[in-house]
Amino acid sequence: MVIDIHGHFTTTPPQVSEFRERQMAQFALDGRILTEPPGVSDAEIRAGIEPNQLARMKERGVDLTLFSPKAVGMDHHRGSEATNVVWARYCNDLVARVCRMFPAHFVGVGQLPQAAGVPPRQAVFDEMRRGVEELGFVGFNLNPDPTGGRWVDPPLWDKDWWYPLYEQLVRWNVPAMIHVSGSCNPHFNAVATHYINGDTTAFVQFLTSDLFKDFPTLKFILPHGGGAVPYHWGRYRGIAQDMGLPPLEDKVLRNVFFDTCVYHQPGIDLLLSVVPSHNILFASETFGAVNGIDSRTGHHYDHTRRYIDASAQANEAQRRQIYADNALGVYPRLRAVCP
Amino acid sequence: MVIDIHGHFTTTPPQVSEFRERQMAQFALDGRILTEPPGVSDAEIRAGIEPNQLARMKERGVDLTLFSPKAVGMDHHRGSEATNVVWARYCNDLVARVCRMFPAHFVGVGQLPQAAGVPPRQAVFDEMRRGVEELGFVGFNLNPDPTGGRWVDPPLWDKDWWYPLYEQLVRWNVPAMIHVSGSCNPHFNAVATHYINGDTTAFVQFLTSDLFKDFPTLKFILPHGGGAVPYHWGRYRGIAQDMGLPPLEDKVLRNVFFDTCVYHQPGIDLLLSVVPSHNILFASETFGAVNGIDSRTGHHYDHTRRYIDASAQANEAQRRQIYADNALGVYPRLRAVCP
Repeated sequence: MVIDIHGHFTTTPPQVSEFRERQMAQFALDGRILTEPPGVSDAEIRAGIEPNQLARMKERGVDLTLFSPKAVGMDHHRGSEATNVVWARYCNDLVARVCRMFPAHFVGVGQLPQAAGVPPRQAVFDEMRRGVEELGFVGFNLNPDPTGGRWVDPPLWDKDWWYPLYEQLVRWNVPAMIHVSGSCNPHFNAVATHYINGDTTAFVQFLTSDLFKDFPTLKFILPHGGGAVPYHWGRYRGIAQDMGLPPLEDKVLRNVFFDTCVYHQPGIDLLLSVVPSHNILFASETFGAVNGIDSRTGHHYDHTRRYIDASAQANEAQRRQIYADNALGVYPRLRAVCP
Repeated sequence: MVIDIHGHFTTTPPQVSEFRERQMAQFALDGRILTEPPGVSDAEIRAGIEPNQLARMKERGVDLTLFSPKAVGMDHHRGSEATNVVWARYCNDLVARVCRMFPAHFVGVGQLPQAAGVPPRQAVFDEMRRGVEELGFVGFNLNPDPTGGRWVDPPLWDKDWWYPLYEQLVRWNVPAMIHVSGSCNPHFNAVATHYINGDTTAFVQFLTSDLFKDFPTLKFILPHGGGAVPYHWGRYRGIAQDMGLPPLEDKVLRNVFFDTCVYHQPGIDLLLSVVPSHNILFASETFGAVNGIDSRTGHHYDHTRRYIDASAQANEAQRRQIYADNALGVYPRLRAVCP
């Protein structure tokens, strides 16, 4: 059993992103909220999934993908809470249809209708309830910077801003993947810079706060191999020590997990050698940030299973943890739907 | 010969940082610019250097350190260009005195009087001239975000903002280390987050711009092992390929160099295995971000020489490049002063 915990519906038909652009244009023009997104046929969904994510999964021996709306498309820094509720519902419904059409291969993870300048509140909680109860979602993507690279809303340890959302995560017994979306800051390329910086930023906010004292059962996944964190594991161990904090194992590793979206062998080797195998979840984010074939290997950069299989840093028992067991532990609702 | 290219005067006597605080308080009060920083005696400088940086260098067999003012103290996001000129001159003069008092062990690298909202202009260029001609500096630290974690001034590829500074670097035949300073953004811990994100951010700005087409001889050093970049080397190779850019070797590695401030063995092994040895310069940033002893090794986290000596990823010839030869290539003015 191999579970990829990080896939996005990046292959929706064109009317989906066109709707968002129309919605944004209308909102900019007169503040009106377009609430009627265009239909998408089953055939269009099939055409998006079968020759792409599903074909790639079969080639690579991936049984199941935790599937969520396109991350760079979450687009929380634009529009308003009202536009973003419509947009999140639309995107989540499309993901839920994929999961219903291919129930053996996809389980849903939801987009939250966050909005810049607006704390997560009822609109977000309503979509969480709908996602879990009606759509069968097992987790959510949480954007730590809904301001799109401006980083002007409060950090993840801000109690007034974020704790009500964490209470909902606990209530529904679901983890959240920390995942930024697009960038409106010219300093930050979205997938090359902002994604990676977002992961590193969240880790340090967890390390330097009491968040997990307040929410001991909360679980977060850091995508993209945890940003810069494993490469600087010594730095973070040393900084924690200098600050008089407990070791990383006690301070964050009961609650924070790393995916394997690291696109070369030495990076995966490093990840597996410094982060305990219990804290690593298989992922590839296929049809995501990097689509090419590495001429040095003849394989796709994002074929992360090859690196894990080839790594001397994990034995068979650890590979089983990484490929499936850890996901079933971190996503309790996945156990109920998993074969 | 072992040259550490990344050391800061973090051990100045207390009146130095007290002056900056007084200067900022006065400026906030009535806009007046305090221009008379307090004296520092030779004995105070000796007491800062001998039992600290110099003792550590001797223990570790480091012959020479490229020494600059405390990075987190550059403080470009506060004050004005006028306050920051006074502050940079003061800090640079103190570094120059260290270099004159211990000429066999320290060579100076300068702080620039950047200021948030102000493009690098005459005040910065004057201090560069003074640094090279009067103080014997061989390089400068360039802050890619003088707004202190707000990232609201233009990116490094902005021609109007940054190119005049690059022209001065070329004119004086000196490289620049890309180094952010403090953070006034609560999202970003300065040394744990902002430093690392700053390095990654600069790399992608170099990768996605024509900067080195316009300045083919310009050289930049990315500190802290290049932020997240080597860990995500496959991601960056793949993103460059997807964007139709030349390979990293051609696009950035003629101009961009990585230091070795990575504080554990697996991180150094990764760096040495993915970045060509020609592009790696030895550094430890001792008395910097991490001061403790790693209980797993019994040695300081920042004793990076141990990791390089122990790494199977470099042979003796490569170690000679990393320890000295590359520094003499990247810092042309160092060759003139080096024994």
